[in-house]
Amino acid sequence: MTKSEIEKHYQKKKILITGGLGFLGSNLAHALAEKGACVTLVDPLFPEYGGNRFNVAGIEDRVGIIIDDIRSEKLMQSLVKEHELIFHIAGQTSHIDSLKDPFLDLDINCRGTLILLEAVRKFNPKAKIIYAGTRAQYGKILKSPVEEQDYMQPVDIYGVNKHAGEGYLWIYRDVHGLECVSLRINNTYGPRHQMKQANYGILNWFIRLALDSKPITIYGDGSQLRDYNFVDDVTQAFLLAGAIPETGGQAFNLGSGNPIPFYKMAEEIVAIVGKGELQKVPWPEERKKIEVGSYVADYSRFSRTTGWQPEITLKDGIARTVTYYEKYKKHYWS
Amino acid sequence: MTKSEIEKHYQKKKILITGGLGFLGSNLAHALAEKGACVTLVDPLFPEYGGNRFNVAGIEDRVGIIIDDIRSEKLMQSLVKEHELIFHIAGQTSHIDSLKDPFLDLDINCRGTLILLEAVRKFNPKAKIIYAGTRAQYGKILKSPVEEQDYMQPVDIYGVNKHAGEGYLWIYRDVHGLECVSLRINNTYGPRHQMKQANYGILNWFIRLALDSKPITIYGDGSQLRDYNFVDDVTQAFLLAGAIPETGGQAFNLGSGNPIPFYKMAEEIVAIVGKGELQKVPWPEERKKIEVGSYVADYSRFSRTTGWQPEITLKDGIARTVTYYEKYKKHYWS
Repeated sequence: MTKSEIEKHYQKKKILITGGLGFLGSNLAHALAEKGACVTLVDPLFPEYGGNRFNVAGIEDRVGIIIDDIRSEKLMQSLVKEHELIFHIAGQTSHIDSLKDPFLDLDINCRGTLILLEAVRKFNPKAKIIYAGTRAQYGKILKSPVEEQDYMQPVDIYGVNKHAGEGYLWIYRDVHGLECVSLRINNTYGPRHQMKQANYGILNWFIRLALDSKPITIYGDGSQLRDYNFVDDVTQAFLLAGAIPETGGQAFNLGSGNPIPFYKMAEEIVAIVGKGELQKVPWPEERKKIEVGSYVADYSRFSRTTGWQPEITLKDGIARTVTYYEKYKKHYWS
Repeated sequence: MTKSEIEKHYQKKKILITGGLGFLGSNLAHALAEKGACVTLVDPLFPEYGGNRFNVAGIEDRVGIIIDDIRSEKLMQSLVKEHELIFHIAGQTSHIDSLKDPFLDLDINCRGTLILLEAVRKFNPKAKIIYAGTRAQYGKILKSPVEEQDYMQPVDIYGVNKHAGEGYLWIYRDVHGLECVSLRINNTYGPRHQMKQANYGILNWFIRLALDSKPITIYGDGSQLRDYNFVDDVTQAFLLAGAIPETGGQAFNLGSGNPIPFYKMAEEIVAIVGKGELQKVPWPEERKKIEVGSYVADYSRFSRTTGWQPEITLKDGIARTVTYYEKYKKHYWS
């Protein structure tokens, strides 16, 4: 699909984004608003989560914003009726927090997804649903790069529940005929990510530490491989998944094609920011238990189906992210 | 482990069985009571489920019986404290019902399992937990026989949620150090199964139809392979899983080693009962969508680890089941 075909596809399209004020949701909202789509965002703005009103600065008059929770059945029933494409991005996204409160993670990531699917089934079964899956569904990968039909063994409650959420999609596809897609998103970084806490989005957090001239802590030797995508590439993946019919009914890995060791990512940040310094410390018990080792994804299925390729290098992406937060720091630091 | 070692292992052992008045739970309770174990059963006796007081006839004075729901956190917290081995068998087990009320299935099979695991973590982290997993975790198998680390694609909400429940086990194993085992149980039949409805346990249901001289309906040509285990063999698998330390931390398939086409199972029943007749009809839409095709399990991992082998042939198992229900019909027909 050419860029102009994508533009045309989304023009005036009625789109719902759950978690729309968060990192992935708001970046997608900007891209869709630029293309003239009619976008509604739903987000509960839980204080400890990634939702941030500033994330829609510049498009706030062009998108509908509903501050509410996807776990409200009535809300979802009325919302899904009016939208032909739904990006389901809302979720509890912290690995660590999922272990501290597994019931909350279950409630948001499983029950919340079921509420959405039931609403679509009952009130708008023709809507297409794009689900934000995650590399956490795989846990420790058994072969590298990992493919979509490899065995999955999540190492945290978040991964188990996100995988169950995706599993529901395939039931609603096969039993109820819904059109569903899952993007199993790898580590993503960039503008509009929360910068309040270290519990998820570690690359962004390291950028904050560097900007604050604080030490950046690497657990162990940091040699585990990571597969980072800049958020604009993930946004483009969402757009393609939503526009190309052939994505329907499938799960797709995203990936960078350029995995790098964790510590090198941190070195890049220090080099680009020109501040901060790396400190290696032993793994804390809590973290070690949910560390998955190297993660490298094979995203060829998605490339074959949509033509998608990540375009932003890590260096370039970090530089853009730094520029963004230098400018808008006050809206993200707290 | 020899039979006398198993006897000795279970003597006076304090054991909790969730779903203890149901099919698998009550058969296990009989075996444990015979071995002199101190057994507590917890079961809510939901009318539409498999729990039945008659299932513990003969041992009712030797086991503790608590009529309550595993979703009561306080109850589970007090119960796990007093037991060193927990068989977690309670669950919503109907594929069809899981599609009709996915929230209830989620609540029982996911939240219920989390409640148990949290209770064990907080109040008795040394207890061993044996989880009743299911072939439904695999859904449509991609290779036959299916092995434990093959890709899983459940075709109903029940399968997704049971798989999530098992996934929690591995998190509690790795993060919190709990000793957990999952038996992925294939189709099981035999005495003490509910005979009220056709929504699960189809072999038992066919036995009822034959005993009632009613037609037995086969959807399609019935050529899909099934892997049936008689309940005594599954009980033996539970006993070994609970007694042998090497099972700890692992998932195991059970299987028969003698898969047979679905329609042949029905023919065996008609031949043994001497009543009933087969009728082939096209697949109803509702059933077709969650039909998985042939299912054959590789149970060699469990055999290697425990020495377990299924011992009861299908013919023999059906005959024993028929004898049981001919005798106790009034407690199961309704």
